[in-house]
Amino acid sequence: MKILVSNDDGIDSAGIYSLVESLKEIAEVTVVAPHKEQSAVGHAITMQTPLRVFEYQKNGKFFGYAVDGTPADCVKIGIRNLMKSPPDLVVSGINHGSNTAINIIYSGTVSAAREAAIMDVPSIAISITSHVVMDFSVASKVAKNLSLQVLKKGLPKGTLLNVNVPNLPEEKIAGIMLTKQGKSKWDDIYEKRVDPYGRNYYWLTGNLFELDHDLEFDQAAIKKNYVSISPIHFDLTDYPTFSEMQNWKIENLLNGKGN
Amino acid sequence: MKILVSNDDGIDSAGIYSLVESLKEIAEVTVVAPHKEQSAVGHAITMQTPLRVFEYQKNGKFFGYAVDGTPADCVKIGIRNLMKSPPDLVVSGINHGSNTAINIIYSGTVSAAREAAIMDVPSIAISITSHVVMDFSVASKVAKNLSLQVLKKGLPKGTLLNVNVPNLPEEKIAGIMLTKQGKSKWDDIYEKRVDPYGRNYYWLTGNLFELDHDLEFDQAAIKKNYVSISPIHFDLTDYPTFSEMQNWKIENLLNGKGN
Repeated sequence: MKILVSNDDGIDSAGIYSLVESLKEIAEVTVVAPHKEQSAVGHAITMQTPLRVFEYQKNGKFFGYAVDGTPADCVKIGIRNLMKSPPDLVVSGINHGSNTAINIIYSGTVSAAREAAIMDVPSIAISITSHVVMDFSVASKVAKNLSLQVLKKGLPKGTLLNVNVPNLPEEKIAGIMLTKQGKSKWDDIYEKRVDPYGRNYYWLTGNLFELDHDLEFDQAAIKKNYVSISPIHFDLTDYPTFSEMQNWKIENLLNGKGN
Repeated sequence: MKILVSNDDGIDSAGIYSLVESLKEIAEVTVVAPHKEQSAVGHAITMQTPLRVFEYQKNGKFFGYAVDGTPADCVKIGIRNLMKSPPDLVVSGINHGSNTAINIIYSGTVSAAREAAIMDVPSIAISITSHVVMDFSVASKVAKNLSLQVLKKGLPKGTLLNVNVPNLPEEKIAGIMLTKQGKSKWDDIYEKRVDPYGRNYYWLTGNLFELDHDLEFDQAAIKKNYVSISPIHFDLTDYPTFSEMQNWKIENLLNGKGN
């Protein structure tokens, strides 16, 4: 079995190293990850400029390919050019910080896995619920065991799994929950500041509005110390609204009738 | 009525100018758009660095706010800081080049509108099916008339409309079609090149695999010269797989049983 590993924290992050060590026990692992941190880049891809690929060493040995692009770029070029044949699975992470609810939209970690799903390769995004992590062993174990299940059972084309693991020792994990994307979102605040030359600049900050309380949602599950696993996809069609809009007078959009 | 206009081609593009001229006939328009082109940035947001905002002039008059960030940044900071009160509608475009099928995932134009939907503001993304456009009048008219319909009828929270207009004179438009996101996707190719210093670099290119033939899909509709309107949302949960995965042994992911 062959697994491609990527992330958005960059190839030198502790999370990807722990993930690779764990997945090596079950598969041949190829690492293709951003050269530098790429958090919150969403599903950006690089088209206007070329990409460069560097061979990256860790502890004096070849660890993987570093790409001066986004997580989605890494998966694309990894599958198209750097691997001899497509992987059986792509795993993205372990991200430092959770990716639940609305954050799935902004996440580079999830986008790497989504790019794999677009390319018909089953994939998993995995995150740990803290930016300050000392121990990736629980998340690495979940990644390995879930990879084995996905390799055995497969996933429908276009589906990926978004996994969040509480930053806790194993004995404090409440359990494992199959979840849906939650509704929690950010109360964005742009702090207005003044630079040393008297010019304004704005820095994004804010708080997550916790709108999920039922354990069937990812954000609620991790708050109650469960590992959360959400199957997600990239069919963005809003089917109920599609049906409802059959009653709109869209045929009049050119002549302006019915406005 | 107040409309916020953004795009991903940058505040100096011809498409946004035509859109603004048209929407000014029906509403008070505020423009907040990227300072530079931001195509294919997906739903990236700027967090690690601050944003700067410039007052941008066109034909000697204030035209709008230019932001040194992504389309999603523009909508966020426009609604949170630059407008006195939230707009009734956000319109993103007119993009030079279509945004259908898998391209919705990569599109900055769509992400600007999606950010508005996340912030509970109804929104429309509008694109024209060519990168070389001489005449935005048909797309501008569609944008204006559809804006009026959305302002009158509203949209469900979290829904946005993704509109694509053929690059044709009005009399050659076949009609207007309510559509779903298509399945067409890219056959990516990374061209490997050598720089003047003997080092490799890779440039993304490729062709769109046309997998949509039924007019109910966006890519098929524009190919047959229809204006395409797709309601989309950001609930990424794959509900059928959620149900199916109830049969997985996820409770064993920590102890590794059932692998």
